[in-house]
Formats: sequence, C-alpha cells, structure tokens
Amino acid sequence: MANAAPSLETLAIGCDIGGTGTKFGIVDRNGNVLFSGEMSTKKHKTVETFINELYEVLSPLINNAGGTGRIKGIGVGAPNGNFYTGTIEYAPNLPWKGVIPLARMIQDKFKLPVTLTNDANAAAIGEMMYGAAQGMKDFIMITLGTGVGSGIVANGQLIYGHDGFAGELGHTIVFPNGRMHEGTGKQGSLESYASATGVTLTAIETLEKSDEPSLLRAVPTDQLDSKSVFEAAIQGDKLALEIFEYTGKVLGLALANAVMFSSPEAIILFGGLTKAGDLILKPTRAHMEENLIQVFQNKVKILVSHLRESDAAILGASALVWDQK
Amino acid sequence: MANAAPSLETLAIGCDIGGTGTKFGIVDRNGNVLFSGEMSTKKHKTVETFINELYEVLSPLINNAGGTGRIKGIGVGAPNGNFYTGTIEYAPNLPWKGVIPLARMIQDKFKLPVTLTNDANAAAIGEMMYGAAQGMKDFIMITLGTGVGSGIVANGQLIYGHDGFAGELGHTIVFPNGRMHEGTGKQGSLESYASATGVTLTAIETLEKSDEPSLLRAVPTDQLDSKSVFEAAIQGDKLALEIFEYTGKVLGLALANAVMFSSPEAIILFGGLTKAGDLILKPTRAHMEENLIQVFQNKVKILVSHLRESDAAILGASALVWDQK
Repeated sequence: MANAAPSLETLAIGCDIGGTGTKFGIVDRNGNVLFSGEMSTKKHKTVETFINELYEVLSPLINNAGGTGRIKGIGVGAPNGNFYTGTIEYAPNLPWKGVIPLARMIQDKFKLPVTLTNDANAAAIGEMMYGAAQGMKDFIMITLGTGVGSGIVANGQLIYGHDGFAGELGHTIVFPNGRMHEGTGKQGSLESYASATGVTLTAIETLEKSDEPSLLRAVPTDQLDSKSVFEAAIQGDKLALEIFEYTGKVLGLALANAVMFSSPEAIILFGGLTKAGDLILKPTRAHMEENLIQVFQNKVKILVSHLRESDAAILGASALVWDQK
Repeated sequence: MANAAPSLETLAIGCDIGGTGTKFGIVDRNGNVLFSGEMSTKKHKTVETFINELYEVLSPLINNAGGTGRIKGIGVGAPNGNFYTGTIEYAPNLPWKGVIPLARMIQDKFKLPVTLTNDANAAAIGEMMYGAAQGMKDFIMITLGTGVGSGIVANGQLIYGHDGFAGELGHTIVFPNGRMHEGTGKQGSLESYASATGVTLTAIETLEKSDEPSLLRAVPTDQLDSKSVFEAAIQGDKLALEIFEYTGKVLGLALANAVMFSSPEAIILFGGLTKAGDLILKPTRAHMEENLIQVFQNKVKILVSHLRESDAAILGASALVWDQK
C-alpha cells in the first residue's frame, strides 16, 4: 500500500464485443473490475452507431474513474479481431461485414490507444493472468457462446499465427459434409454443433426424428437453447440428455484433435453451454479420451472458467492494455 | 576463414529414425552433411540390437570425421519422440513397444550427449535452419512417410506442448467412424489415408469398388504404393488419378483444420508422397481452400521441401545438438 495512492493508479478499459451483446469495464492492474456495463451489439446495423453508443455509455464510467487522464488505453476483444492490424475481418457472427478498422475507429473516437484481438484470445489472456490458467504455459481456451471461439497458448505465448487470425477452432471441420453453417457456408464445423445456435439445431433435429415424449416439446422453437435443454435434462428428460450427449460427442472429438495438435495441459471452457456442468462435461471428456491416441490419454484437464462470465473477457481485453507501448 | 581451421570445427551427429529405415549423418554448423549412411529400423525386434548396429555403422564415420572428440553431441528424430524426457512412447510405427528411454540408451553407448525429438519436429527445425522455412516464424511441417508426422512452429518456436508430444496431426480424426488405423485402433485419422499404408489401402479400395480397367490391376497388392499410383497416373490412368484426388481431399481437409488452428504462413510437405508433385498437390490445395473460412483463403503456401530427402531430417536432428548445453 506504500507504493501508490489508489487515486493516481493507471487504469485500463476492457471491451468484449460479442455477436449479441458488448460488455465493457474499467479495470485496475490487479484485475479488479471497478466499473462495468453492457449494451447490444446486434441492434447496430453500422459500426459507426455502435461506436457512438459505446462512447456514450463509457463516458460516465470514465468520469467516475477520474477522467481520461487515468486511462492508459482500451483493449478490445471481438470475433475475427486481428491483433496485428486492429481490424475485424469477415466476422460471421457480427452485423458488420467485410474488413473494419475497428481499433483505429475507436481510437479516433476516444482519443486513447486501442489494442484489439479476437474475443477468445482476450479470454485466454484473462484466464492466464487472473483465472484457471494461472501458471500454465500450454492451454487452450474455448468460448462456447453465440459462436465457438478459441485462444491457444503455447510456450507461454498466445498463438496469433502469421496474420493474426490463429485460433479459429470453431471453424474446423468435425463432420465432413455435416451440418451447414449459415454464416460461413461451410459444412460440419464445430461451431455448427457446439454454439448456442448449434445446440438449438440439435434440439430441433432430435425432437423431429424421435416420437419419444419430452419436456422440450412444450418449449417454443425460438426459445430452445442450452438453458431449456439443461432444465429438461436435470429432470431426467431422455431427449434432453441425448442432446447433451451428442453435443459432447462433437465437442470431445474437436478437443481431441486440438490436443493432438498442441498438447495443452488443460482446456478451459467458457460461456453459456458450460452452465450445464457435468451434463455437457462428462460426454465431452469421454469422447475426447476416446479419440486420443495413448500418449495423450488421461492427462489433459478440461476445466470450466471460474471467472465471472461478464468479467473474464473484459479482464482479458484490459490486459492487452498493459502491454501497450 | 580466419576464425577456425576446418579440422578443429565441432560437428554434430543427426539421426533420423523412421518406421522402416534409419538415416544418420555427421554435419557441420553450416548444414553440410559430411558423412552419412542408413540402416534398417524394421528388422530390429529389440531396441538394444538397433543401438548396437547404429554404433557399428556410425563408428567408422566418426573416425573419418576425426574421432569422438570433434563431435558435440547426437540429435535424434524418432516417431513419438519426446523432447523433454528423451523417451519414445507407444510409437505405433516402430517395432519397439511401450516407453523406451532412447536418448539415455544411445548416450550410454556413444558416451556423447543426446537430444531427442519427434521426427517431424526434427524435420521442421531442418527446414527452418536450412530449407524452405528459412525466415518464417509460423509454419507447419508435414511428413508423409510410413506415417504422417507434423512439426508446428509458431512465434518462431517449435510447439512441444506441456508434455513434449505436440504435433501429432497424423492422428487427428478427419472422418469420424472412418478407416481403422491398425497401430492406434482409432478410426478415420489422417494417417490412415495420407501415409504410405493409407495410399495403398485407398488404391485397393478404389480398384475393388470399380470395374474400370486400370494399369494398377497389374501391380501386385504388396507393391501398390504412391510410386506405382504415380506411374499409372502420369499415363492418364483414371483410377490412379482418383486415388490422388481422394488422398488430396483428406489431406486438404486436415490442412484446412490445421490452418484455422495456428494460421501458418506455409505448410511444408516432405516425404514419399510429395514425389507425385501436382498430382497430389493440386487436389490438396483445392480441398484445403474449399474448407477454409474466408479470412484464411488464398494466403497459405503449400510448399514441398527442397532439401534432399535423406538430408532434411538428419539436418534437423543435428540442429538439436547446437542448442545442447
């Protein structure tokens, strides 16, 4: 406590842009989220109105924190975000198409340095600095949300790849000629099965091809999601359990392939689907092990992020700021 | 030339252990293979007789190079070789089962420090130091031989993973419930299709399920391999072309998944199958691109190693020695 009075401490803004909503917070160096909020991403047809609203909702928080002078910079996690160029490119889960120079646009608006990376990379940094991956040098972060994202850490470093786009595990093909992904036009990718949309599609398909009674038959199709499937499953609903088993089968296979690629100490899962706990984790673990060759078996941990969901990505994004020059 | 008389220069031994044969050489710091030779791996039922023969065949070369005093150490590339522990573990393509402390055993025999890694990692180091990957920080090396191996370089470093076993791309599952791999008991792995054995199996299957005449029908089954398929294909044999198309389809899909994982600048292919040139490269490239999401399309190079096949892995293995403490 002798080093710095709290009022003089430099702070960082972390901003996590998801396909549905955007979360933001002002964070100190110890990973305390001092102020935070959220807003819709989806309703903004243009990135300009999105940035305008972000500025409006963040400005009072910045004032509460002592003004722009105390903020070192802004870290942003966004789907298909590129660490090297500060752009988001062809993001299937965002309303804005093409290549968008998001870091520069936010920087121009806020007059603060902005560092951007993809949302799962930001979450991986958050876990490494403040969460379940503290002390790990090799792990994979998987975010199971609107889409499926991933951040890969090897030798203690985030893998960005030659162009800044590494870690798109959600788009790897698990079932050739499998389910069509509306956003990418590719068939059989992990994201078509293990995302929020994917679980809904599996639920619809499972209900359609069976005559079995199910609590899920009372749920309107547009409300079918991992939460409603979870609620049915804990009451022992057979089809709901089948939906988790199938989702775990696909996810477990994709995780096995990822393990045989970079041999991580742990895979850290994050996002809505993980709330189903063992209902999704048990089949995922079982199918991962089933697909691993012997040298990899029974040594990779599958962990669920214990950071508050709203905090992990904000913390990770804010952590980008501390490395800004 | 003022620094060191060549006769005083320190040398390294590089040794590449494959499922069928083992290649070895004595290499200088500039990557010149001064002396080299090869021997059978397959015929040795025990690792002890293998090491004894290796000692017998290498000793005269060491004498020619000026004796043990000039050798800094031995670098070994071997399937399922572990950089951290110096062991080979459960290698499906080697005659010796279980966990074998190979580095220690060779060290005891030769009285020289030994560093071991998997064969594809060794080849990746060879390419990075002396071959097609010079100057690259993110690339993937794929060896298409008896098995399918891979070495992944990201941020300029080889990815070993938390346990030293990263880079087993050959065992990733491409077709769930696909072709059985005799060595691992897993179904549908890349190695079941894109290895020497895999191409032979595809050839047998293709010939069986078609009535089409083919030059390959004259080849005895135990001689069917990528070479005989190549020879038929360059004469326009329809089924031979189909076999390459199918192999390229599977390999291209696996490469697309690898690209979406670590986003390399290039994939460098190495090994027997690459001798078919465009017959295998064209379908591989086409199917890789087909499975990539937009941000990755048309920017990853697929290159064929231009190091002499016998040299690349020896050079890579020898390069391990220069980092020995």
